[in-house]
Amino acid sequence: MRVIRNFSDITDMLRLSHGRKRVAVACPADSHTEYVVERALREGIADFTLVCAGTCAPEFARLAGQYPDRTDVIIVPTPDDTARRAVEIVRQGEADVLMKGTLNTDNLLHAVLNKEHGLLEPGRILSHVTATFIPAYGKMLVFADAAVIPRPTLEQFEAILGYATGLSRRLGVERPAVALVNFTEKVNEKFPHSIYYEELKQRAAEGRYGNVCLGGPMDVKTALDTESGRIKGITSPVVGNADVLIFPNIESGNVFYKTITLFASAETAGMLCGTNAPVVVASRADSCESKYYSLAMACV
Amino acid sequence: MRVIRNFSDITDMLRLSHGRKRVAVACPADSHTEYVVERALREGIADFTLVCAGTCAPEFARLAGQYPDRTDVIIVPTPDDTARRAVEIVRQGEADVLMKGTLNTDNLLHAVLNKEHGLLEPGRILSHVTATFIPAYGKMLVFADAAVIPRPTLEQFEAILGYATGLSRRLGVERPAVALVNFTEKVNEKFPHSIYYEELKQRAAEGRYGNVCLGGPMDVKTALDTESGRIKGITSPVVGNADVLIFPNIESGNVFYKTITLFASAETAGMLCGTNAPVVVASRADSCESKYYSLAMACV
Repeated sequence: MRVIRNFSDITDMLRLSHGRKRVAVACPADSHTEYVVERALREGIADFTLVCAGTCAPEFARLAGQYPDRTDVIIVPTPDDTARRAVEIVRQGEADVLMKGTLNTDNLLHAVLNKEHGLLEPGRILSHVTATFIPAYGKMLVFADAAVIPRPTLEQFEAILGYATGLSRRLGVERPAVALVNFTEKVNEKFPHSIYYEELKQRAAEGRYGNVCLGGPMDVKTALDTESGRIKGITSPVVGNADVLIFPNIESGNVFYKTITLFASAETAGMLCGTNAPVVVASRADSCESKYYSLAMACV
Repeated sequence: MRVIRNFSDITDMLRLSHGRKRVAVACPADSHTEYVVERALREGIADFTLVCAGTCAPEFARLAGQYPDRTDVIIVPTPDDTARRAVEIVRQGEADVLMKGTLNTDNLLHAVLNKEHGLLEPGRILSHVTATFIPAYGKMLVFADAAVIPRPTLEQFEAILGYATGLSRRLGVERPAVALVNFTEKVNEKFPHSIYYEELKQRAAEGRYGNVCLGGPMDVKTALDTESGRIKGITSPVVGNADVLIFPNIESGNVFYKTITLFASAETAGMLCGTNAPVVVASRADSCESKYYSLAMACV
């Protein structure tokens, strides 16, 4: 399998693959969603079922007319109905990916998390994974969780690790190098995540997570910069070479996400994991590009 | 008072000011400390008392010979003795700033925090403040706490806020705009810091923190980028304009620190606050420049 080096590689791969994925969009009515759907149709990376509230907005009706074989339109009464219906379509296997339009995220999640009719099987852990390309780093980097789980338990860390390394492998990395992020290398029971990290490393050494290399606790600079690791005398193969960053809590993951998009020209793509199908719930302040890449990532 | 726009302004100000500060250095023996002391002597921004263990290293003896009126050398038996003696010198008012050489940080802190002979008065809160210049942001930014207090209590947040706004004012900002950082704008009792933020805003409104403007909870992108705030519909005068960032915990502060130095060409200067005098304890992986700026900042 080829290694995905950046987001163009992802869209190239999708364009060249056989059998496009179908995306159910709940409540498409805004210009960002229009940009994403139009570009995905034009570049041939996905087909769509547009679940609209009340009526189909003119720009989406135009797209449906332009790509009739690749675009279905379903009209339901209210925005909340679009969420329920789009979830149902994915449950029934009639779409592979769920994507949020103008709907409030909480309302979409309500339908996704519905115990009887939702997309999260009992016992599964919902999390959020982001893939990013930072030009100064030069390769794809996956990190979690910047959006859903506030203070992961050991069980939640294990799920997050599974989702993040799974995405890294789908991007062509055979043996993901995973940095367990902390503000120091020290393990200290006052910081439960540092204790969980030790347990994760133990389990990884027992082969429970497949072909993977875990390092840490270490700070993000050590994970992403060889020289910083050298100065600190840290010799893990993860140093300066991480494919995956696992963050200790939602605040630190979010700070990384926001800082790289603001100051490091980072492109990002995020999605919910743990559900029966990927769910794309881009943030309001994300760029159109980022939303498009999120859709592409979910279709990989 | 003039506004300090970047680190050159700080060293300019120190060079032009009357009465240089004196810095007690505990255990100067490494090339980074040599760089800092030599440059500070050459640029005329500080005088030094070098407290050496066993002997004075040749490069420092050379500097003392070159600047005899501005450099004292004291020899004590061990590195731990250098910490105790340097602290004593500051306690007695014979130096204005304490700076770590090759000594282990914990050993220096041991002397600094000594109840009888240290530099922290009973009831005072020890914290760490960083000043940074990020070229893409274009003005000095102060943030805390990335290094000392793991999960601030309300009382600790109040101290951190005081130290950070104090530094911002010394840098010439009359009314610091302070962003209380979180991963969301929502206040939620599951996240105690968001509750403390509300209390801090209430107390600020009552005038308890002087001329200051508090905004938040908000994410770092909203604090530093006007457009992100506009998209989210957040209208605080702090949006896109923060002079100070208060982080909810040490992990998120540390991620910001490491990410801006790695990817945003940020220059940084950090110091301990709450002590009778500023204490400069640069991190191993900090650049020589950063260590020099830390010293300069402590002398402001």
